[in-house]
Amino acid sequence: MNIGMIGYKFMGKAHTHAYHDVKLFFPETLAPRRLIICGRDERGVSRAATQLGWEQWSTDWNEVVTHPAIDLVDINTPSNAHKEIALAALKNGKHVICEKPLAITLEDAREMAEAAEQSGAKHMVCFNYRFVPAIRLAKKLLDEGRIGQVRQYRGWFLQDWLTDKDAPYVWRLDRSVAGSGAHGDLNAHAVDLARFLVGEFQEVSGMSRTFVTHRQPSAEEMDEAAFREVTVDDATSFLACFENGAMGTFEASRVAGGRRCANGFEIYGSEGSIRFNFERMNELEVYDTGDDAGSQGFKTILATESCHPYMHAWWPAGHGIGFEHTFIHAVLELLEAIKTDRPCSPNFTDGLRCQQVLDAVEKSIASRQWVRVESNL
Amino acid sequence: MNIGMIGYKFMGKAHTHAYHDVKLFFPETLAPRRLIICGRDERGVSRAATQLGWEQWSTDWNEVVTHPAIDLVDINTPSNAHKEIALAALKNGKHVICEKPLAITLEDAREMAEAAEQSGAKHMVCFNYRFVPAIRLAKKLLDEGRIGQVRQYRGWFLQDWLTDKDAPYVWRLDRSVAGSGAHGDLNAHAVDLARFLVGEFQEVSGMSRTFVTHRQPSAEEMDEAAFREVTVDDATSFLACFENGAMGTFEASRVAGGRRCANGFEIYGSEGSIRFNFERMNELEVYDTGDDAGSQGFKTILATESCHPYMHAWWPAGHGIGFEHTFIHAVLELLEAIKTDRPCSPNFTDGLRCQQVLDAVEKSIASRQWVRVESNL
Amino acid sequence: MNIGMIGYKFMGKAHTHAYHDVKLFFPETLAPRRLIICGRDERGVSRAATQLGWEQWSTDWNEVVTHPAIDLVDINTPSNAHKEIALAALKNGKHVICEKPLAITLEDAREMAEAAEQSGAKHMVCFNYRFVPAIRLAKKLLDEGRIGQVRQYRGWFLQDWLTDKDAPYVWRLDRSVAGSGAHGDLNAHAVDLARFLVGEFQEVSGMSRTFVTHRQPSAEEMDEAAFREVTVDDATSFLACFENGAMGTFEASRVAGGRRCANGFEIYGSEGSIRFNFERMNELEVYDTGDDAGSQGFKTILATESCHPYMHAWWPAGHGIGFEHTFIHAVLELLEAIKTDRPCSPNFTDGLRCQQVLDAVEKSIASRQWVRVESNL
Amino acid sequence: MNIGMIGYKFMGKAHTHAYHDVKLFFPETLAPRRLIICGRDERGVSRAATQLGWEQWSTDWNEVVTHPAIDLVDINTPSNAHKEIALAALKNGKHVICEKPLAITLEDAREMAEAAEQSGAKHMVCFNYRFVPAIRLAKKLLDEGRIGQVRQYRGWFLQDWLTDKDAPYVWRLDRSVAGSGAHGDLNAHAVDLARFLVGEFQEVSGMSRTFVTHRQPSAEEMDEAAFREVTVDDATSFLACFENGAMGTFEASRVAGGRRCANGFEIYGSEGSIRFNFERMNELEVYDTGDDAGSQGFKTILATESCHPYMHAWWPAGHGIGFEHTFIHAVLELLEAIKTDRPCSPNFTDGLRCQQVLDAVEKSIASRQWVRVESNL
Repeated sequence: MNIGMIGYKFMGKAHTHAYHDVKLFFPETLAPRRLIICGRDERGVSRAATQLGWEQWSTDWNEVVTHPAIDLVDINTPSNAHKEIALAALKNGKHVICEKPLAITLEDAREMAEAAEQSGAKHMVCFNYRFVPAIRLAKKLLDEGRIGQVRQYRGWFLQDWLTDKDAPYVWRLDRSVAGSGAHGDLNAHAVDLARFLVGEFQEVSGMSRTFVTHRQPSAEEMDEAAFREVTVDDATSFLACFENGAMGTFEASRVAGGRRCANGFEIYGSEGSIRFNFERMNELEVYDTGDDAGSQGFKTILATESCHPYMHAWWPAGHGIGFEHTFIHAVLELLEAIKTDRPCSPNFTDGLRCQQVLDAVEKSIASRQWVRVESNL
Repeated sequence: MNIGMIGYKFMGKAHTHAYHDVKLFFPETLAPRRLIICGRDERGVSRAATQLGWEQWSTDWNEVVTHPAIDLVDINTPSNAHKEIALAALKNGKHVICEKPLAITLEDAREMAEAAEQSGAKHMVCFNYRFVPAIRLAKKLLDEGRIGQVRQYRGWFLQDWLTDKDAPYVWRLDRSVAGSGAHGDLNAHAVDLARFLVGEFQEVSGMSRTFVTHRQPSAEEMDEAAFREVTVDDATSFLACFENGAMGTFEASRVAGGRRCANGFEIYGSEGSIRFNFERMNELEVYDTGDDAGSQGFKTILATESCHPYMHAWWPAGHGIGFEHTFIHAVLELLEAIKTDRPCSPNFTDGLRCQQVLDAVEKSIASRQWVRVESNL
Repeated sequence: MNIGMIGYKFMGKAHTHAYHDVKLFFPETLAPRRLIICGRDERGVSRAATQLGWEQWSTDWNEVVTHPAIDLVDINTPSNAHKEIALAALKNGKHVICEKPLAITLEDAREMAEAAEQSGAKHMVCFNYRFVPAIRLAKKLLDEGRIGQVRQYRGWFLQDWLTDKDAPYVWRLDRSVAGSGAHGDLNAHAVDLARFLVGEFQEVSGMSRTFVTHRQPSAEEMDEAAFREVTVDDATSFLACFENGAMGTFEASRVAGGRRCANGFEIYGSEGSIRFNFERMNELEVYDTGDDAGSQGFKTILATESCHPYMHAWWPAGHGIGFEHTFIHAVLELLEAIKTDRPCSPNFTDGLRCQQVLDAVEKSIASRQWVRVESNL
Repeated sequence: MNIGMIGYKFMGKAHTHAYHDVKLFFPETLAPRRLIICGRDERGVSRAATQLGWEQWSTDWNEVVTHPAIDLVDINTPSNAHKEIALAALKNGKHVICEKPLAITLEDAREMAEAAEQSGAKHMVCFNYRFVPAIRLAKKLLDEGRIGQVRQYRGWFLQDWLTDKDAPYVWRLDRSVAGSGAHGDLNAHAVDLARFLVGEFQEVSGMSRTFVTHRQPSAEEMDEAAFREVTVDDATSFLACFENGAMGTFEASRVAGGRRCANGFEIYGSEGSIRFNFERMNELEVYDTGDDAGSQGFKTILATESCHPYMHAWWPAGHGIGFEHTFIHAVLELLEAIKTDRPCSPNFTDGLRCQQVLDAVEKSIASRQWVRVESNL
């Protein structure tokens, strides 16, 4: 399994580590080989190649997607570059894994999903939180009907790195590069988890805010002096109806002081409830209406036992895992899909579905009305 | 201070206890005398009079509001009876304390607020959660600017006594008596706290659901046999813009399994954050962006010290108080307003303001659009 | 039920409130009448009588214990005065409730317990924490065998009002008045809870420390200028074996910064575990080894439901109670014992048993060896 | 840096992963090469070599410790084999890392520490919990005097895999192989953390229990039929005095239902407090007596920021790490010590110091008295 990876920063490192570790813990899967890493900045990418253990490096992604030895292309560039690379990779018969959001417009996402479905390749969009064992446990409990019919869902993803008005400008604040702000970055995860756990969205009503409209240049750009305009949202919230009748509320923010990486949900069903917060990623809280009267309450399950999803491969009960493990499990899913020639999940169609929801929220914000989520693929 | 109280059940007991205890802990205030308790059911009210220590009882509220010895009328009947009693009491020159929601329509609430403002009497609407010491502490921190400018607010009030589809029918499920369901019952508190802590609402977009549309008769009515239709909401959520630019999300539910009485909020400001949940009513969580790098985090303050609001009157630090104390503090506010002839807070105008928000949410649900909150009084 | 109370400060107020409220919530019990309150300081006690609603006051406790109208004597003076008053009250045929620790020496405690047992009166030692509903729930679960055989117990009572070396001198720091420090004050409660929940102690090994050996005079005594020596412990810990084979660790401290009133325990049994901390007094955490594999974890029970001990008298589920309610329940126990002529629990014998354990710990500290707890009564 | 590793099970896997990953995240350090893995069972070790990525395997540890290419010997066998291997490795001039407890008798530990100190080699005992970032942060705060002078320390390490009386017999229950039970396995960590955070022990008083004295054979040995006697403790608790005057309580248990891997501590100082529990390993709770009155409370610090120890190498704030990272940091410490020729910490002398404390506790249990901890090295 020869990998070519485009992008080498935060996500590049997380993905690299997943390729590095996956076979140590899941020895039955395919062996990924870190063949070529690619980035625009020669110095940066060559240094990354050395540190992250890639055999070759390149500054031309075309070289990677057309390289005959490459089996799998991993795309973790800024969002506006996803489409072109992914289409080229698919056209060249490569399997593709792409960071979220799949694209910065719904049209682009659809084009990518269609190309992926028509190719014979495996494709994955890297909604890594689906691979948190505690979240998989939640999914299992839901599928078993343990909390009955879902009635209410609350999803949120709160960060705080933009709370300070003096935090400098970065590419993630430029709509033309990032597509949107907290919405595309964080609601993308929240929406995907809701789809994973509850089902498809029907309609939405949203609102968003940019609290700090101009930001100073970053340290490296200090000579440019001028403040730059923030063209994306700091926070976006929305209400949702699901196709199965459940109601939902969603919040994404990058200005929620003290919430470093609070990606969570609460689910209330006819027979129980489930809560999760990524800041305590090894825990799941479960309430069961069937417990004896007088003995009811939320139970904190430490999802670290060998019977919990993925945990047989790790440590004894109580020995938690961390953020990066979600990528190992995601890569495992992709490798297993390739190995056994079955569909990968989540794939580009999931990426499109997610984009349809995000797009409907943006339309709703513009029109100040409820907007129906597109359901055609 | 002779009290006449209309209503004698859950809230009647809570209010009675407040009159009973207030002077023991706040000896400087007026001495309330429990003179007449009133209810429709002769057997019920006479028994309540004995147990709750009222000198007289009556089945005719007119008798109470016109009784020459009565100084203060306490109304804790079902919501649809509030208006008529309150107007009569005010007309007879009585001070009035009324349970929330003030009325079941906006028009009624306005009429009550106008009558109250025009009377020389003191009037209070019993938003008792304002009197939780930890919430008062939150208010103090906000007023001092400790978390800067508020950007995001999340308010919720989740209960679960209707989760079970076999929970029987009660008057609170009848729109003609209760006005609405979780919305008027629980969002009323959530909206009032948001007004107290953040400021006035500007516009809202809501949704609501009734998950169990028909319920069996209660044990006492079992011979009636037939299921009755639920004409109020089980859960109502909404988005909000505040006049000061903050954004908000709100959730009220009576079907949130495991959340017995989760009345809470999260506030994110430009310089810090605050969290509260009534299920741990003696705690307030505070995050301060000004803490040293590496030492930042949410701090759990046990709001039980003599320097915390109201707590000088109670026990040493760490010895928490309970639900009923909120009513003691509310009654104290009213007695002090009467004693010093100053406005009471929250009063009927606050009740009206709250109703304006609740009403706008209902209009928004009907129109499927954002609705501006009335700002005229 | 005419009450005469000796002492009128922190505990006097808590007890007064219990007499004031008990019949409002437990209408079937006897009606306590606050007849005489007694204290050495005329100005203080007369003011207390007014504020706390006692009909008469006195500066002579002899007057109270011999007063023909008095049925019940309530003793909440400093510990060194307990014995003389209690013996006199019993001799005069009064029922007696006494604050803990029963006495400041084991001999005194034994004399009191013997006198109490020989009298026909009801006697209670005010281990009020036994009356926390969540702790009663723990007791119920233990009695039902829900956690199997108890193997390990950890009890602690941590406060922090002496953390600051500048906190002033008070009578509680004088061995001749208080008997001991954190040990008698706080371990008394911890030991009583352990006896209540697990059973009798067999032997102990202890250690103690006084970290701040001299303290400045209090504000009122500032003219005296001189620092005074602290003759009691700031913290005392001990190991214990129980008669049933369980092992225990105990900690009491008044210098545990941030622990305002952390009276708690953890119990590990052959089939489950229980945890409690008074700072969240409405919660009990329970672990059941019999839960399904993969669904095991500590469950947080909000012990506020009508099926929980004492809670039928209070508010709907989720509406917590506070510190003072423990005294209402304690007084209820005493009144019911008097009303139905049955033994009261905990009574003076429990006070003696507790003292035997505390005394053994002190002997162990002195001898630097394990010491067997006296088991004779 | 050629590694030879003896042992290949739980700890072998954790150590292997550390060698595998360390340079990916800490690129400046030495490059460890997994040369030879060694174990008694040929089939087991050969399979481990393949899965864990070791170049060679052996069933003879002598071969490893004498192998000319080996620079570093990693010992993670059962405890009774540590000494012989370590001495041989040191004699052959190898650097050594050894799992805890260093040895099963104090004499053995001393012999090992002496040999290590006399060799020119680097030596480490694998007290991996010292390398949890949140614990390092605690250490930093202590060193900076942020909580003043330490007065009370509570250390505990609670697990529950032996709670069930039907859990089968394993080598860890045989004194001749394991040395002791919960005491050597878990108190070893608790003692080391206390030494790391507070300082040296002076004297101790302990107790221990074996609740399940005989256990059934494991599934593989089922044909042997007979139950085997458990010759180690299920739980051991002890009191301690530290040389600096602080007092301590310690608990280790493998029968604490629901506590999967609860390795924690509470530290109370003259100016603040610190709490930690490994089950939430990314969090540290800190209380500062210097906070403003009314704003005091325990703060939950998510120790995941780039300014926190080791965290610059990992992910953005809020993205937690897991159990295995402690080994990566431990290996980094060893590699850096080798690279820069400085002492490694913790080393074999720390292992001896720990053993001295554990040994004193065992003597205390036998003699039923306080026992002074040996302080000679």
